[in-house]
Amino acid sequence: MRVAFVMGSDSDLPVVERAVKTVQSFGVAVEVRVISAHRTPYVAEEFAKTAEENGIGVIIAAAGKAAHLGGVLAAFTTIPVIGLPIKSSTLDGLDSLLSIVQMPPGIPVATVAIDGAENAGILAIQILAVGDPSLKEKLKTHKIDMAKKVMEKDETVRARYT
Amino acid sequence: MRVAFVMGSDSDLPVVERAVKTVQSFGVAVEVRVISAHRTPYVAEEFAKTAEENGIGVIIAAAGKAAHLGGVLAAFTTIPVIGLPIKSSTLDGLDSLLSIVQMPPGIPVATVAIDGAENAGILAIQILAVGDPSLKEKLKTHKIDMAKKVMEKDETVRARYT
Amino acid sequence: MRVAFVMGSDSDLPVVERAVKTVQSFGVAVEVRVISAHRTPYVAEEFAKTAEENGIGVIIAAAGKAAHLGGVLAAFTTIPVIGLPIKSSTLDGLDSLLSIVQMPPGIPVATVAIDGAENAGILAIQILAVGDPSLKEKLKTHKIDMAKKVMEKDETVRARYT
Amino acid sequence: MRVAFVMGSDSDLPVVERAVKTVQSFGVAVEVRVISAHRTPYVAEEFAKTAEENGIGVIIAAAGKAAHLGGVLAAFTTIPVIGLPIKSSTLDGLDSLLSIVQMPPGIPVATVAIDGAENAGILAIQILAVGDPSLKEKLKTHKIDMAKKVMEKDETVRARYT
Amino acid sequence: MRVAFVMGSDSDLPVVERAVKTVQSFGVAVEVRVISAHRTPYVAEEFAKTAEENGIGVIIAAAGKAAHLGGVLAAFTTIPVIGLPIKSSTLDGLDSLLSIVQMPPGIPVATVAIDGAENAGILAIQILAVGDPSLKEKLKTHKIDMAKKVMEKDETVRARYT
Amino acid sequence: MRVAFVMGSDSDLPVVERAVKTVQSFGVAVEVRVISAHRTPYVAEEFAKTAEENGIGVIIAAAGKAAHLGGVLAAFTTIPVIGLPIKSSTLDGLDSLLSIVQMPPGIPVATVAIDGAENAGILAIQILAVGDPSLKEKLKTHKIDMAKKVMEKDETVRARYT
Amino acid sequence: MRVAFVMGSDSDLPVVERAVKTVQSFGVAVEVRVISAHRTPYVAEEFAKTAEENGIGVIIAAAGKAAHLGGVLAAFTTIPVIGLPIKSSTLDGLDSLLSIVQMPPGIPVATVAIDGAENAGILAIQILAVGDPSLKEKLKTHKIDMAKKVMEKDETVRARYT
Amino acid sequence: MRVAFVMGSDSDLPVVERAVKTVQSFGVAVEVRVISAHRTPYVAEEFAKTAEENGIGVIIAAAGKAAHLGGVLAAFTTIPVIGLPIKSSTLDGLDSLLSIVQMPPGIPVATVAIDGAENAGILAIQILAVGDPSLKEKLKTHKIDMAKKVMEKDETVRARYT
Repeated sequence: MRVAFVMGSDSDLPVVERAVKTVQSFGVAVEVRVISAHRTPYVAEEFAKTAEENGIGVIIAAAGKAAHLGGVLAAFTTIPVIGLPIKSSTLDGLDSLLSIVQMPPGIPVATVAIDGAENAGILAIQILAVGDPSLKEKLKTHKIDMAKKVMEKDETVRARYT
Repeated sequence: MRVAFVMGSDSDLPVVERAVKTVQSFGVAVEVRVISAHRTPYVAEEFAKTAEENGIGVIIAAAGKAAHLGGVLAAFTTIPVIGLPIKSSTLDGLDSLLSIVQMPPGIPVATVAIDGAENAGILAIQILAVGDPSLKEKLKTHKIDMAKKVMEKDETVRARYT
Repeated sequence: MRVAFVMGSDSDLPVVERAVKTVQSFGVAVEVRVISAHRTPYVAEEFAKTAEENGIGVIIAAAGKAAHLGGVLAAFTTIPVIGLPIKSSTLDGLDSLLSIVQMPPGIPVATVAIDGAENAGILAIQILAVGDPSLKEKLKTHKIDMAKKVMEKDETVRARYT
Repeated sequence: MRVAFVMGSDSDLPVVERAVKTVQSFGVAVEVRVISAHRTPYVAEEFAKTAEENGIGVIIAAAGKAAHLGGVLAAFTTIPVIGLPIKSSTLDGLDSLLSIVQMPPGIPVATVAIDGAENAGILAIQILAVGDPSLKEKLKTHKIDMAKKVMEKDETVRARYT
Repeated sequence: MRVAFVMGSDSDLPVVERAVKTVQSFGVAVEVRVISAHRTPYVAEEFAKTAEENGIGVIIAAAGKAAHLGGVLAAFTTIPVIGLPIKSSTLDGLDSLLSIVQMPPGIPVATVAIDGAENAGILAIQILAVGDPSLKEKLKTHKIDMAKKVMEKDETVRARYT
Repeated sequence: MRVAFVMGSDSDLPVVERAVKTVQSFGVAVEVRVISAHRTPYVAEEFAKTAEENGIGVIIAAAGKAAHLGGVLAAFTTIPVIGLPIKSSTLDGLDSLLSIVQMPPGIPVATVAIDGAENAGILAIQILAVGDPSLKEKLKTHKIDMAKKVMEKDETVRARYT
Repeated sequence: MRVAFVMGSDSDLPVVERAVKTVQSFGVAVEVRVISAHRTPYVAEEFAKTAEENGIGVIIAAAGKAAHLGGVLAAFTTIPVIGLPIKSSTLDGLDSLLSIVQMPPGIPVATVAIDGAENAGILAIQILAVGDPSLKEKLKTHKIDMAKKVMEKDETVRARYT
Repeated sequence: MRVAFVMGSDSDLPVVERAVKTVQSFGVAVEVRVISAHRTPYVAEEFAKTAEENGIGVIIAAAGKAAHLGGVLAAFTTIPVIGLPIKSSTLDGLDSLLSIVQMPPGIPVATVAIDGAENAGILAIQILAVGDPSLKEKLKTHKIDMAKKVMEKDETVRARYT
């Protein structure tokens, strides 16, 4: 199953790209799209309705300001939708965050931090790994790698102050 | 032309009703609907796409929390959409407000105050009045009536402290 | 009917200009003014009171900080007033937004996003188009054009990741 | 010189009353008005323009939500205007506060706490006392009285835990 | 696979219970725990480390104020962790939300709305359904049921205003 | 050494009392005062300047709104001052919190949660315990007791859902 | 009578300077001080207690972050204290604003906008002008000058779009 | 006794360094670590559990975004933990602050200002000084030094405006 990335504007690409690379680093195929919930609503609907049959397992929806994209896609599918709030507004992304996370009952959007692209990618892998033991193993290795990196930095900093 | 009221949940009705009554007090016909951008997206699309041909001149969209309704309707029509943020969440309606007012470029939603139902109604009338001199007259009378009411209260309070 | 743009300070012009160009791109005449609700209150009053007879159909009021301009103009006219909050303060424009959108009952100001100049322009056109079929057509064309631009970007980005 | 109290709506009276009583407790005459910056703008203008000649030394303007009243009055006079933000909205009065305190350069409004009616009254007296030695004396007595009350409570609470 | 519910305090149970019922309504087994990240950190660690081998597919972590529970559990497992911010503080749950959603890179917590218990439950089912076609079918039925309920309310409200 | 509790107003007593009881439960003596940084500044100064010689080891300063008490006391002493923000304003205590925690460089105030009285008490004990092994032991016992209580609740809730 | 400017840190001087110049432009003498409420509390006390006898009519207190300076000075005098919140923190000055404006009952601080130095200066002049007709005249001239400047800009901008 | 500094990421080092230098300037030994509550939870636990026996008297925990580090360390020790919120997110550090200061009952974290490194250091010294008269003396000297610096700046600025 692939992970689909949908962004509301191609100006979001620099942030989204980090999520794409995270997913690709786990060997999972991606599809990357620019679809606006407001300017191309028919494309949004078509994309979401056919996502499952097109082999998409998780959707990552990145949008800023009044960020409706995640909710709009989730309205047309039962695939898990991860919302990635983009800090594209004057309000530091608080509007993006609230527009995505505060979904009313019935249609969840799994929200990560503002501009939290890596975590959107890891969460997508964690979801796919629920039914995929080999991905599960890669996640465990990734967790160990992260710990090692922190421990190396700990070593360096600690030494500097001794 | 009629004014359509769309709310995301019938729990919003007590607030929306004040807007409906305001519009009706100007002798303008109304249509009142419960349509969820997320739970009944096909109805939302159908409603918005056919609104113009159904004689609707302005749409008032009331929703709370991650309030996507106004933006979703506006995506499918060029009729002016007024967004009425409902204080239905734990955040005092700030999430509703930002989800509605911070629309990205291309698709505006004319936003009024949180729970500002009367103003949503008056704004709808002001918009219809752009091409309707008799409505214009009623608005002027309404403005004078409001002023009179304030002046009466002024009289009362002023007297109390003299 | 023309669209009037009123800004509280000429430092707001770079933002307002985008709204002006949007309106002009629809072939609608404009009037652009610098009027302060606080420093030139008599001009504000005179402007708003005579706006209708001067052929103005919609007013776009742009202001920052404690942004009273939209409300002050709306007090003297029944023409729809669009409020454009300017991010001119240290608070990212939150003060501008709340000062404009939270109007008390009776006098609405149709608020768009902070620095959301294009949407202020489109909303003005949508309002004028209520009584003007040719503007309505232009809005529909504009909507299609916007969709095309997004779809082209979609094409480009999608291809890059295949 | 009198202190004038202007409130945007008579629903603000319970809060404003505390300010009135504070001012009266210093033996200063008051005038209490209900004037809406938006619904009775002509009254607001007339009131502010004639305030000085009517013997008013300080104006206390109380308003909630998009609270333009203080700024609108200050536009027409050089008398000090004290802004009293009323917690009348769903946003805990944050909108009232920002609408009043964030005045752009040129026209100040001396802002006190949300619902801070007593302080609005005391500030008015402090301003009048700049040119009035007998008021100055009363303020000093008032300060001592306040201190005494706190010290009595201190005595009581302290004793309870010994 | 079961869904585990962990709450930081049993005072969160009334909210969490709605999530539990949602999950149970899909025929999925649950485990419900009271574990504090701060007061019982060893239990938290033990629970998270053994969750996978204990047949838990998704963890829903509910906590309020400085809500560290989701992040702390996610530190010890690669199972998807859903964060449910509880409005248990004086700040309307904004502290809970930010403490959960703003996770730094490496360890995501899939966050839903403040007190958004139903959505936490549905999201858990959506995640399990990635590898479970029968759950997928139930989700589709659930989506249709939700739509029907909204449409019935639409019918009722619409009729009232005709 | 004793722990001193200072509150800006006796209306803060119900919250402060929980902190007092926490400290007393560790067998540490207390002194409880009502001192206003603004209304009794001389008392505040005198109290802080003599605190050390009066056997006070830690000061807990509780105040709401523009909560200057902690900072004012800390200006006159080098004893650790714990700031306890009281939710006494219309802004949910956010003003109290920021007024206390955002101290400029040089004079720290150790801030706990809004209305977080128990934690203010425990923090005071932790500070005294730095030089007092028997208090240290009591803190460890207290930590175990807290864990036990959570584990009992865990037992109860867990059983209910099995 | 002179206007005294007190700032909590000399890093606030660039902002305060604008207020000083405003006051000087009205021909009023100034005194400019760096006094920290927390680091030089005795100086603060001494300054405030002797301000009146030293011929100071109004105090402008500028401070950032947990900005206690205005409140601390006001505690020791009955002279009007104007609070000027400085945007010196990471929170855009919201902490400064709330620390200053939300003063509890009894001791007001007349607050102006964040970094609103000009308005602090004008407000000081307005207060002194209550008992000084020649200052009053200067304020009226200043008001006319401000209006003229706006009208000139209006002329320029208006012409550009005709 | 030493002061331990723990930061969640080595990108926090520039801020933390100011705290380290503050502590060192009092002649107190330090230990500086990079430990992530989420990526190296076992290191965090081990560090906190052994801190006391390793001669650590106070822990300063610096972290940004969803800043769980202070709470996680405090869960495993009864040593006072000072939380230093880092402005590392898009939300100006408000998320860091709330994640740290709003700790639920039982486990306090003594919070200082966002990026308030100097104060974290001074607070640590104040805590150690509770049982160490020579540190107490150094704190008093430090307080006098700070006052002198402010008074020198006062002298300079004051002279400039005379």
